[in-house]
Amino acid sequence: MGKNGLTHLDSNDRPQMVDVSKKEETLREAVAEGRVVLPQRILEVIREGKTKKGNVLLIAETAGIMACKKTPELIPLCHSIRLDSASVTCDLDESNSCVVVRCKVVAKEVTGVEMEALTGVSVAALTIYDMCKGIDKGMRIEGIRLLKKSGGKSGIYCVEGTE
Amino acid sequence: MGKNGLTHLDSNDRPQMVDVSKKEETLREAVAEGRVVLPQRILEVIREGKTKKGNVLLIAETAGIMACKKTPELIPLCHSIRLDSASVTCDLDESNSCVVVRCKVVAKEVTGVEMEALTGVSVAALTIYDMCKGIDKGMRIEGIRLLKKSGGKSGIYCVEGTE
Amino acid sequence: MGKNGLTHLDSNDRPQMVDVSKKEETLREAVAEGRVVLPQRILEVIREGKTKKGNVLLIAETAGIMACKKTPELIPLCHSIRLDSASVTCDLDESNSCVVVRCKVVAKEVTGVEMEALTGVSVAALTIYDMCKGIDKGMRIEGIRLLKKSGGKSGIYCVEGTE
Amino acid sequence: MGKNGLTHLDSNDRPQMVDVSKKEETLREAVAEGRVVLPQRILEVIREGKTKKGNVLLIAETAGIMACKKTPELIPLCHSIRLDSASVTCDLDESNSCVVVRCKVVAKEVTGVEMEALTGVSVAALTIYDMCKGIDKGMRIEGIRLLKKSGGKSGIYCVEGTE
Amino acid sequence: MGKNGLTHLDSNDRPQMVDVSKKEETLREAVAEGRVVLPQRILEVIREGKTKKGNVLLIAETAGIMACKKTPELIPLCHSIRLDSASVTCDLDESNSCVVVRCKVVAKEVTGVEMEALTGVSVAALTIYDMCKGIDKGMRIEGIRLLKKSGGKSGIYCVEGTE
Amino acid sequence: MGKNGLTHLDSNDRPQMVDVSKKEETLREAVAEGRVVLPQRILEVIREGKTKKGNVLLIAETAGIMACKKTPELIPLCHSIRLDSASVTCDLDESNSCVVVRCKVVAKEVTGVEMEALTGVSVAALTIYDMCKGIDKGMRIEGIRLLKKSGGKSGIYCVEGTE
Repeated sequence: MGKNGLTHLDSNDRPQMVDVSKKEETLREAVAEGRVVLPQRILEVIREGKTKKGNVLLIAETAGIMACKKTPELIPLCHSIRLDSASVTCDLDESNSCVVVRCKVVAKEVTGVEMEALTGVSVAALTIYDMCKGIDKGMRIEGIRLLKKSGGKSGIYCVEGTE
Repeated sequence: MGKNGLTHLDSNDRPQMVDVSKKEETLREAVAEGRVVLPQRILEVIREGKTKKGNVLLIAETAGIMACKKTPELIPLCHSIRLDSASVTCDLDESNSCVVVRCKVVAKEVTGVEMEALTGVSVAALTIYDMCKGIDKGMRIEGIRLLKKSGGKSGIYCVEGTE
Repeated sequence: MGKNGLTHLDSNDRPQMVDVSKKEETLREAVAEGRVVLPQRILEVIREGKTKKGNVLLIAETAGIMACKKTPELIPLCHSIRLDSASVTCDLDESNSCVVVRCKVVAKEVTGVEMEALTGVSVAALTIYDMCKGIDKGMRIEGIRLLKKSGGKSGIYCVEGTE
Repeated sequence: MGKNGLTHLDSNDRPQMVDVSKKEETLREAVAEGRVVLPQRILEVIREGKTKKGNVLLIAETAGIMACKKTPELIPLCHSIRLDSASVTCDLDESNSCVVVRCKVVAKEVTGVEMEALTGVSVAALTIYDMCKGIDKGMRIEGIRLLKKSGGKSGIYCVEGTE
Repeated sequence: MGKNGLTHLDSNDRPQMVDVSKKEETLREAVAEGRVVLPQRILEVIREGKTKKGNVLLIAETAGIMACKKTPELIPLCHSIRLDSASVTCDLDESNSCVVVRCKVVAKEVTGVEMEALTGVSVAALTIYDMCKGIDKGMRIEGIRLLKKSGGKSGIYCVEGTE
Repeated sequence: MGKNGLTHLDSNDRPQMVDVSKKEETLREAVAEGRVVLPQRILEVIREGKTKKGNVLLIAETAGIMACKKTPELIPLCHSIRLDSASVTCDLDESNSCVVVRCKVVAKEVTGVEMEALTGVSVAALTIYDMCKGIDKGMRIEGIRLLKKSGGKSGIYCVEGTE
């Protein structure tokens, strides 16, 4: 392990995909969240255009799930693992003028799946941006974070206020 | 074009990669930005571990550039285009306890490159998360947005306060 | 060029991506079609479950568009080109107990885009199979073929009966 | 599970990669089949040009095997699994003027491998189309279907007439 | 440009995909070469097993061509470009106990194609290793280098002794 | 198995990804090596430009690790496996005017990981070439070979002189 607890860097600070061959295979879950903050014009289109909203959000959900599977291609030192489940939900939160994106990933594996969940959220959010940017480019992606994580020796991680 | 100006959905709200064969090839640039907000323990490690900091941030920059090239694989309706330049910078901002990630992309193309710039920022930020999550999982990715865009018939887009 | 007019094999019958550097860049279009023939139980589910139908078919359309962009990764000797437009439609044809899949691709390029259109149809059809196989595995994918092609020196190709 | 038995859609008809973490790992096999129907001119070239035939069909077989491994990238809700074996055969059937493509996939896994086998057949067939389209574009891909499937709790699936 | 002429690092030694938007599109060609040095047992199998030799070498040639198209995914700071032609030849050189691998790439582009040619050679050579390693693991890959390059403002590069 | 012990070709010399479903899962390790031989001008830049050297070599190490994960996409008949660890080191060897690249891969798997280690070395070496080719194109990649391998029924493989 590298100095200062950065497990991805070896003792000479070179990159490495850390050895997990001694770790135990357990059921691991992770839930991540993020928000796409919407200018008024986009909020209206998504709220009123019922069919359309379904489509924009559904395509974003599909893209998010596909991105979970691509995580080890994107994040250099992330392990290629076999996911047992992945789902993404995009919900319009009108009172906060945003779409709330959540991703849950499950795997019986030797490493955690938080990066897969965070990547799923990020790509779903980017897809919403892409599909609405013709209306207004002033969207912002905010608050991408891990909400919960279980499995593995570090135990349960849970953000306060998340049941 | 779909109703309500959502150009990615056709008149029956089906997905489509919109036709850009009639658009003019011009020099297009986009700059996007985001922040990885760091818990105190990670901030200290990055600040004090000079060699390490270089490495964490450099690997994130490399991952961000590679992700720019993967944008059309990730975003369903995004065009595959040829990028003329891509760069990502990750800078520690101690006073705000965060790493500021910026990505600039240039292409002489028929479509804009804002999605490539936003994807570069997102993946660089996720890479920082991945490399530091062994210390503390309480990082958050905030404020991913387009700062500037030029080229194309919609003219220059520029967030206020950005020169 | 190889013997017998197989342009992908050189004079010693080795594979090659044929040289298109001398070919003219023109506007090229291709339309391909295929059908997923459905057992009765799946037909009913898709016909009655209106919301669901939209979703199954929409996810298949999205997958088909993404596959168009992956064509050169899948087909060994196919050129990597920049697509100007891609769209996939999946329509339930109740009287023939099938879903009709069509894909149209447009590119201002030096090579034709028929492989992209055929690949889009194939992957959309496979996605429908995947999403409905829990109900009945007796689906069949039939009639994948090129309907129309224009652009390039070989002129317009059009299957009889297609306007 | 979604209404109507569509396991890929959750109770709100959103896409999800279904949870297989509780499923048993068993030896799973799948065999799929399809045909590329050939115009006379292509049939002759493949029949007479012995060396060439070997090459066209061998490249298609290679492409089909590589596509088996790419299945989870192409089919949005398909699990990434580890294949234990994959093979594709392309045989000229002169009396029926076609190439018969078969793909067999084996995996000790928690999910079936029918999508991998069907994808292998589809991409091998598309590769034959690509390599012969310079001669005649009138080829058609027909009859892509699952022939056999074993392993997993749904038991053995076998098309009538297939031993 | 970075200090010391390393164009891939900016003035702070950060990675960047260098800006080629001002460069001229010209016809660029590159030829690269390498050798797989074979232990006696493998040499004999390839020499005597005529059918097999064709297959091993043909699959390697196919893999090499496909790898040319994957170059920008593999090499972090390499531009995604559109190749006009790619071919790989694998020839048994009995007197030197090796397979000679050559790859030629052509593109009308703003950057050179030497990385594509070198990558094609490398992956074809690795494929030969993979297909023969069951017989003997003592193979070595030697002499991967650029033989010729033309197009672009740096003029013609040609290794001595290569016509 | 094919004639002559080539396990990747079946009895008719067709390609196949060989069946490993009966093989035992054991801890497998592989170490591979290669060298990038440097012209004098590049050697000096890397030796003197301390910061730069770190960066060139670090980016190459990162690219090599990422390539290990891409091995089954590049090598047609290679199995997709889950790697437990991967690391690449690039060390300047001034007395021999070269960079020595080593890659170590570990996996608890049913197949060996030598192809992953050899691919990691190859892509790290190609990345060094790419980053320094603006100075001099006369680099050569030499001596890519397997140094050590353990796990699996074929026992330990070790090149003489390697401890």
